[in-house]
Amino acid sequence: MADQNKTKVVTIGTIQIGGPKFTVIAGPCSVESETQLRETGVSVKASGASILRGGIWKMRTSLKSFQGLGEESFQFIRKVKSEMGMPLISEVTDARQIEEVSDIVDAYQVGARNMHNYALLKELGRQPKPVMLKRNFSAFIDEWLKAAEYITNEGNEQVILCERGIRTFETATRNTLDLNAVVYAKKHSQLPVIVDPSHAVGISELVAPLCYASAAAGADGLIVEVHPSPATALSDGQQALTFESFDKMMRQLEKVLNAFDRGLNRA
Amino acid sequence: MADQNKTKVVTIGTIQIGGPKFTVIAGPCSVESETQLRETGVSVKASGASILRGGIWKMRTSLKSFQGLGEESFQFIRKVKSEMGMPLISEVTDARQIEEVSDIVDAYQVGARNMHNYALLKELGRQPKPVMLKRNFSAFIDEWLKAAEYITNEGNEQVILCERGIRTFETATRNTLDLNAVVYAKKHSQLPVIVDPSHAVGISELVAPLCYASAAAGADGLIVEVHPSPATALSDGQQALTFESFDKMMRQLEKVLNAFDRGLNRA
Amino acid sequence: MADQNKTKVVTIGTIQIGGPKFTVIAGPCSVESETQLRETGVSVKASGASILRGGIWKMRTSLKSFQGLGEESFQFIRKVKSEMGMPLISEVTDARQIEEVSDIVDAYQVGARNMHNYALLKELGRQPKPVMLKRNFSAFIDEWLKAAEYITNEGNEQVILCERGIRTFETATRNTLDLNAVVYAKKHSQLPVIVDPSHAVGISELVAPLCYASAAAGADGLIVEVHPSPATALSDGQQALTFESFDKMMRQLEKVLNAFDRGLNRA
Amino acid sequence: MADQNKTKVVTIGTIQIGGPKFTVIAGPCSVESETQLRETGVSVKASGASILRGGIWKMRTSLKSFQGLGEESFQFIRKVKSEMGMPLISEVTDARQIEEVSDIVDAYQVGARNMHNYALLKELGRQPKPVMLKRNFSAFIDEWLKAAEYITNEGNEQVILCERGIRTFETATRNTLDLNAVVYAKKHSQLPVIVDPSHAVGISELVAPLCYASAAAGADGLIVEVHPSPATALSDGQQALTFESFDKMMRQLEKVLNAFDRGLNRA
Repeated sequence: MADQNKTKVVTIGTIQIGGPKFTVIAGPCSVESETQLRETGVSVKASGASILRGGIWKMRTSLKSFQGLGEESFQFIRKVKSEMGMPLISEVTDARQIEEVSDIVDAYQVGARNMHNYALLKELGRQPKPVMLKRNFSAFIDEWLKAAEYITNEGNEQVILCERGIRTFETATRNTLDLNAVVYAKKHSQLPVIVDPSHAVGISELVAPLCYASAAAGADGLIVEVHPSPATALSDGQQALTFESFDKMMRQLEKVLNAFDRGLNRA
Repeated sequence: MADQNKTKVVTIGTIQIGGPKFTVIAGPCSVESETQLRETGVSVKASGASILRGGIWKMRTSLKSFQGLGEESFQFIRKVKSEMGMPLISEVTDARQIEEVSDIVDAYQVGARNMHNYALLKELGRQPKPVMLKRNFSAFIDEWLKAAEYITNEGNEQVILCERGIRTFETATRNTLDLNAVVYAKKHSQLPVIVDPSHAVGISELVAPLCYASAAAGADGLIVEVHPSPATALSDGQQALTFESFDKMMRQLEKVLNAFDRGLNRA
Repeated sequence: MADQNKTKVVTIGTIQIGGPKFTVIAGPCSVESETQLRETGVSVKASGASILRGGIWKMRTSLKSFQGLGEESFQFIRKVKSEMGMPLISEVTDARQIEEVSDIVDAYQVGARNMHNYALLKELGRQPKPVMLKRNFSAFIDEWLKAAEYITNEGNEQVILCERGIRTFETATRNTLDLNAVVYAKKHSQLPVIVDPSHAVGISELVAPLCYASAAAGADGLIVEVHPSPATALSDGQQALTFESFDKMMRQLEKVLNAFDRGLNRA
Repeated sequence: MADQNKTKVVTIGTIQIGGPKFTVIAGPCSVESETQLRETGVSVKASGASILRGGIWKMRTSLKSFQGLGEESFQFIRKVKSEMGMPLISEVTDARQIEEVSDIVDAYQVGARNMHNYALLKELGRQPKPVMLKRNFSAFIDEWLKAAEYITNEGNEQVILCERGIRTFETATRNTLDLNAVVYAKKHSQLPVIVDPSHAVGISELVAPLCYASAAAGADGLIVEVHPSPATALSDGQQALTFESFDKMMRQLEKVLNAFDRGLNRA
């Protein structure tokens, strides 16, 4: 298995990613309302997630699709976070957003579409918060590792890699989860590696077994989409877990981690 | 996880694939000599493998590459098998070989390059031994499931599906292991599904974590390349496990299976 | 442009492929009836095609799809051919078919799904008629060139390469026509290279510009699907040209060839 | 062929792209020196190119690779352009560069890696100069067309699409030129479509036949890398044409265009 002991620890809030414990980041694809965020946070925390995810600005193929609430959500996000005591990770899609959300988010996410946006990576390298760098859906593993250097080279070594599926000829699933890349990156990089099975498969009922597989492959954590009502989600509902299916997944996940003498990070 | 209870059981020798127990098929890429086959068989059986694999005829891109021992190996294969008490699975690359090896092999393998060879599939459907159908490296999941029907439609329902990696843009690994396809096939087909991580990643030191991932994803078994001396193997040495690394993998694999209340099939 | 002067000439009937003239093979995907074959032959010959194509046995993903007329078509094919004075190329999907159609077909086609069927390739290498080897939809160019050696190595040097599109992530078109592969093969192999734009794009209205592009890239010929009534074809109707659109394409194609001081081979 | 009459004309300097004439943009991958730019400009103009290309800032996988001269080149670029009387197209990799080079460049290029950088696209939509939008190497055609709307929706309708090859399993060529996408885009979009065969194949000796193929497929123009000394280029030398090979290509290209009753735009 991967050389876990070499991995550098990255700390989001008080949660250590890359150490002996396994980290689950969970939450909705997009932040849609105060109620949606609070209910989701309460539920995923109770199930064992330690970091909240939620999109403020969305990258969408069509400009007619929902683009995120943007700044109208800032106030209630701050409120929900302080109630919950959970750190938040959220995507920035433009260098000018970094400053704007610096007092709301505890870690920045670079989405797959921006992995090659070196201007954005450099800006993130000049500020102190951790950065989760998603692999572009057609990036060679080597490009992904080298993209991380655009951040670390500016001084910020708090970088987490995230595999989220690649584009292949297969159409039955949204993307193809590339666990080869996870085990390869664990061998060839000291950065923590987490997996996003929700985007990688795109079908909610197939997410849980891929969570177990990711943990068994030696990943340092997961980022999972959970929504109070997937059928009415404003984005990516078909791949979100319900509170109940997330909770069931987490109970089985702990058994898999125990088989490797690991446990869950808890908020 | 996948609906294990719906899976139809396929029996190779006395080993049931697709039931509650997990099956490990192991052995060399190519049968190279009596000694090599016996040593490998003794070792993998002691580690918990229950079925032996070994290529008699090889499909090679270049006709200058080693093409397998063919019929000169028949006599010693029979001898080693009877000593070991392990069933053997081996690939046929031409319909005329089916009869030729029918008293040596306990199950036929259809290689990735022959998944679309419907003439071969139909012949295998007209004889009674189990068939393991590898997914072509660029077959849609749906084509793979439909190819199996070319066998079952002729009357032989003893078919096992095998995922062995697909061709993608990535070059750091030999192929891309597609565990999405495994969980998808477990949901949409009643045939047992096993995984070949050796071909799917092509780098021996990355095989073990992918074995654990495959088991955690809900596969029914594994087929793993093991060789007494990978560095001197006549084919695919870079992806073969040594006896020692295979044994270590098997001990951790059992822990992963136990996390799902499963155990290993034993010869 | 490609080194046309190095190309070995392959002769089908009296038509030379790989010389200064450009060859167009045309006809239906499947032979469906005597009338359909005759009408199509008369029309494509008048437009400038010199070789007839038509499937006798079809490779189909689903065994419920139309599998070709098989031997019930032998008699009328012989009749139509003798009336037309055009050579016929048709696919064999099993080594046992080679002998069966040896007095009907003037050249054998190996379909994309059988490019790796080395047993079939060797058999075709032991008989004297030309063989058109389609590139598998996920074969490296190098594998395609090496597959041709399985034929030539047995003594039959009359081999034509055919590019018919590869599988990529793109779904707007059936496959992705790889003209890079055509120019690469023209540089690195002495075998004639022809292009099948019908399968490569799968949308009839996009076929004509890709015919011109293939000629301009330096291919030695084309194989194009033409049907008297594409909407009612038993296979692949969405990519077949009508007689009228084929004729219009051929008139523009000649202008493109003239720009390279080439002309059309005529039956 | 494509519906040329529907295409909207985009004007760079005085050159109309998308009308009956075909446009060739040529120049070095990176601007390396005043001498290199001037010599290249003089030569490609004499051969029939009407717009100059040249990278000021480069997107590179490794931050250790040459990143472009940046602002130290501004003064001499201005000088060379005024001598030559040719418009210049150059890539911007960050929204803050748009203003910086607005008095040097006549059209902005969005590189393949930035096709999904919607923040950059929107900024380019709010200024009046034409924008050439390269297709990301793994973008669906539909995503490419929708990305263009992020520009046009802000008010700038002067958008040119550019196909530059996609990532596939094939490794013999740098990327796979997708002419299917060109004919598809010509049918489904009114924007002009040009082709970059240099990046699409990555091997200089294969560039010329793909230029002819692109013109024959109905593209509105080409963008071609030309360098006074490809062997010593600071980036992408293996795919650059020499002055002589570019000139030879242009003479044959005109013959191909004439076959379609088209000619070259001239500076």
